[in-house]
Amino acid sequence: MRVLFKLFNFYLSKDKYFARRMYDVLGFIPGNISIYKLAFSHKSSQNEKSLLSQNNERLEYLGDAVLGTIVAEYLFKKYPDSNEGFLTKMRSKIVKRKTLNRIGDKMELDGVLQEFNNTRLSRSMLGNAVEALVGAIYLDAGYSFTHKYIVEKILRRYLDIHELENYDDNYKSQLLEWCQKHGKTISYKLISRYKYEKRDRFKVGVFVNNQRIATADDFNKKSAEQSASEKAMIELGILSEEEDDD
Amino acid sequence: MRVLFKLFNFYLSKDKYFARRMYDVLGFIPGNISIYKLAFSHKSSQNEKSLLSQNNERLEYLGDAVLGTIVAEYLFKKYPDSNEGFLTKMRSKIVKRKTLNRIGDKMELDGVLQEFNNTRLSRSMLGNAVEALVGAIYLDAGYSFTHKYIVEKILRRYLDIHELENYDDNYKSQLLEWCQKHGKTISYKLISRYKYEKRDRFKVGVFVNNQRIATADDFNKKSAEQSASEKAMIELGILSEEEDDD
Repeated sequence: MRVLFKLFNFYLSKDKYFARRMYDVLGFIPGNISIYKLAFSHKSSQNEKSLLSQNNERLEYLGDAVLGTIVAEYLFKKYPDSNEGFLTKMRSKIVKRKTLNRIGDKMELDGVLQEFNNTRLSRSMLGNAVEALVGAIYLDAGYSFTHKYIVEKILRRYLDIHELENYDDNYKSQLLEWCQKHGKTISYKLISRYKYEKRDRFKVGVFVNNQRIATADDFNKKSAEQSASEKAMIELGILSEEEDDD
Repeated sequence: MRVLFKLFNFYLSKDKYFARRMYDVLGFIPGNISIYKLAFSHKSSQNEKSLLSQNNERLEYLGDAVLGTIVAEYLFKKYPDSNEGFLTKMRSKIVKRKTLNRIGDKMELDGVLQEFNNTRLSRSMLGNAVEALVGAIYLDAGYSFTHKYIVEKILRRYLDIHELENYDDNYKSQLLEWCQKHGKTISYKLISRYKYEKRDRFKVGVFVNNQRIATADDFNKKSAEQSASEKAMIELGILSEEEDDD
């Protein structure tokens, strides 16, 4: 019955074109097409051309949570011997804006967003659409389906998990390497230490040839140095800036 | 078969006592008892007296995510016309440490924690145990069961959702009322404005009779004033301090 209903949606309804586009992108025929339309309705584009009177922000909110849980469990089972610190770190690397933007890019969501919104695309719209789409799949097909779909069709397909594992501790050493290659000195200095919500917070600066290039704050010096190194690499043109997390 | 297995666990195994304790607390007979034991094993208590060689932190990490999703969906459906800003705010009020500590208290998890750990209980152990328990239920019984259980046995039972709705904007007006009653002046001053991860951040001070009582930082002045008011109320003894979020 559900299959017949889906086929009706797919072949006969006025939503045929949208349903086909969803099939291209997702690899399955959506049940409740209107939820998927909502997932692609950006707030900046809400007028006669937009798909629905609502926008995708509520779905993003829901999808963000669902994706977070699926990723959390995926890592929990993939790394049975890792502690929760490592798991939390890996999870935030996967669900951060930059990674989701890349996933949205690989899923070719830009085409759909372009077709159904009359606004200029920004990179962060890709990541937001991934979240909204996860929310839509969850409402349409339930948790188990969404879980299986995300793990098989998104995480295993578009994420290089081993690259992510080794990712974050690289900026400092990459910057060091670059400085050595270019005959420059590099040093890190603690600029200030302050309390933030009762926890110690460190502001660290990175200096190349004794000139301050960037600063960053974090709850420990090591992480602040990493962030400052990343900023310095963008500042020095070694690393290209991607859309920031938002 | 599963029922028989559960009954075996409950009545015959050496874990009988623990299974009974879980039945008291949860209202159902656990399937995989060892996961629930893990949920109550605090890291500070890992020696011969502790239940298992691992501790509950990995389960907390998982349960935090699962609870976040269940709460997200609960609010999504409860407030069909609210925007994602409201939903996000409500969600964080529910999953914050203070609320979870209270839920753990009402679930009487302190008794179980006391019995199975040889460490002094802190309030935050209650909230952590709630999260770990959600992780355990999820691994033991799956998403649908956990969802139904959390909504019916925890959210509807222990949360006053309408109180939470009206909760956060109260500190400033409560403090104002107190000052008026006690013939004191009150003012708020912007102490500094700085950049934090590329966003503007505001440090605000609250002054009673021109004396600075407390300061707080946030991404907008209104929220900073609210936090500063809350701190001031604790400082002035109007509000009792609960365990902070951590």
